[in-house]
Amino acid sequence: MPEGTSAVSRREIERVAVLGAGSWGTTFAKVLADAGTEVRLWARRSSVADRIERERVNEEYLPGVELPRGLSATDDATEAVRGAEAIVLAVPSQTLRENLAGWQPFLPEGATLVSLAKGVELSTLKRMSQVISEVAGVAGERIAVVSGPNLAKEIAAEQPTATVVACSDHERAVALQRACSTGYFRPYTNTDLVGVEVAGACKNVIALACGVASGLGYGANTMSTLITRGLAETTRLGVALGAEPMTFAGLAGMGDLAATCLSPLSRNRTFGERLGRGESLVEAQRAAHGQVAEGVKSCTSLCALADRCGVEMPIAEVVHRVCHEGLDPVPAAAELLGRERKPE
Amino acid sequence: MPEGTSAVSRREIERVAVLGAGSWGTTFAKVLADAGTEVRLWARRSSVADRIERERVNEEYLPGVELPRGLSATDDATEAVRGAEAIVLAVPSQTLRENLAGWQPFLPEGATLVSLAKGVELSTLKRMSQVISEVAGVAGERIAVVSGPNLAKEIAAEQPTATVVACSDHERAVALQRACSTGYFRPYTNTDLVGVEVAGACKNVIALACGVASGLGYGANTMSTLITRGLAETTRLGVALGAEPMTFAGLAGMGDLAATCLSPLSRNRTFGERLGRGESLVEAQRAAHGQVAEGVKSCTSLCALADRCGVEMPIAEVVHRVCHEGLDPVPAAAELLGRERKPE
Repeated sequence: MPEGTSAVSRREIERVAVLGAGSWGTTFAKVLADAGTEVRLWARRSSVADRIERERVNEEYLPGVELPRGLSATDDATEAVRGAEAIVLAVPSQTLRENLAGWQPFLPEGATLVSLAKGVELSTLKRMSQVISEVAGVAGERIAVVSGPNLAKEIAAEQPTATVVACSDHERAVALQRACSTGYFRPYTNTDLVGVEVAGACKNVIALACGVASGLGYGANTMSTLITRGLAETTRLGVALGAEPMTFAGLAGMGDLAATCLSPLSRNRTFGERLGRGESLVEAQRAAHGQVAEGVKSCTSLCALADRCGVEMPIAEVVHRVCHEGLDPVPAAAELLGRERKPE
Repeated sequence: MPEGTSAVSRREIERVAVLGAGSWGTTFAKVLADAGTEVRLWARRSSVADRIERERVNEEYLPGVELPRGLSATDDATEAVRGAEAIVLAVPSQTLRENLAGWQPFLPEGATLVSLAKGVELSTLKRMSQVISEVAGVAGERIAVVSGPNLAKEIAAEQPTATVVACSDHERAVALQRACSTGYFRPYTNTDLVGVEVAGACKNVIALACGVASGLGYGANTMSTLITRGLAETTRLGVALGAEPMTFAGLAGMGDLAATCLSPLSRNRTFGERLGRGESLVEAQRAAHGQVAEGVKSCTSLCALADRCGVEMPIAEVVHRVCHEGLDPVPAAAELLGRERKPE
């Protein structure tokens, strides 16, 4: 039987390991458990795993949410992945390579590797599925991505939410879809993994641009123009990388972008607002407790990727120049609007 | 020379009549004047026209905004349209037929007729361009539509905004684009008039659904799922009526929808919020000073149109049942999420 296509692993996912107990990893583990799937959640720190086991709560990353009984926690990744048909990778994008390299020797044969990370690796300009394929040495059809309008806190509160489960192997996507379908969480399958990943990587940059516009005092017209034109340039990049254009009109494209831009909780939007109000990158970072928003890093790797593909991404370009070259946001906005008149 | 293709009217628009001095009509007249086009704005009431002429302000519909010198106002429609190369129809959709019938005898030959109205005529299920073509007796290529993420108050404040100028005759669209391009208002041309109209008619219904979800206490995930799935059903209806799918990913589709859903000013969203909080249609209407939101009417005509085309529009259907058949919003939301699992 060829690698990664064992009948069991493709058709049925009953045991899942979620590696990474941040807010989204913990929430997705809860969804899986609520769907009746057996879940082991790995936390780096034993104190976090212990407290989940003892008190059914991840106080640091998902305070106030009671975790279901079908979910167990451990700080031992070997233990977490044993016998799992799917391994969910829920660590930050820029640390995925290093983390996965440590786990690689223990990964169960044939298991589906599921990425929750959004981004493009800075040093290599690779998408997360490419990093996974390279480090774990598995074929592309064994890798899936879950992405959509998925603010963790709202899902944890069991608000109705839809998402996309993408995998080039449709049967595998369906198995994962079954494993995470609940009354409040509704996954749709898609075979366009590339499109889903590109959409996820770009949306933080566009949310940052929306934040800048909002910080400049602009309202819904300007923001939704940025959202629309931003999704258009995201689509151009995706198509150049082999994605289907319609993916970007779906939940992982427009849906995720709209959720991020609608939500007052979005870190990228808030960060952009500070830049728009005239704060420097250093000042905005200080206000965000030392954290740099994801879009600040992604804009640079996306511009490099766009350049390599010969694709124009004027919004990402302007975000990069505002963040890293000191461009004043006021003429930046004028520049974006002042481009040559043409058909949409 | 064939009807409606005189070289002058197609290539150059120097004088425009705007018929209707509500908030959007007045704002669009200001945009045209700021673009250097000569504009005559018709107001039904002489008091409104007089005050614009005397004080350069439309206090009732656009308070606090100084109107440019290139804009004159009149309560005489015959006077307004004389010698105009484009006639902008800025009256409510359900009154367009009657108004236009009165103006028809005076319309200058070959002029472009531009619709700002959004909706589907309740009695006939016709789009606004179909009503115009029928009443004015002109060919489809003489009719244009302007639509996009265009909250009037923000444009009047000269915030950067993009829009779509749609006309099946590209040259005519370009002439109109030139006539309304300013530093803050950036029109893109599109030849897919049907798509732009269907998008405009559906967005109020989706905004109403988003309002209901918000009234039920749901956040950005649920709303952006409704936006995304709502745009998908809008696209299905549009394509069944002959529209291009990509129009819906553009400014007149996604852009307009996002602006309406992002804005706290949207009447449809506010109205839906009241329904979601458990108020009846009558109570919500009372709170809105007797006005019924546009989506309350449109949902019924759109469902009828969808039915005629054999297209499923589950969100419009649920909005119709909540508004007109007393369906409780709580099971309605569950019903929308509980549909069969399938590919996106």
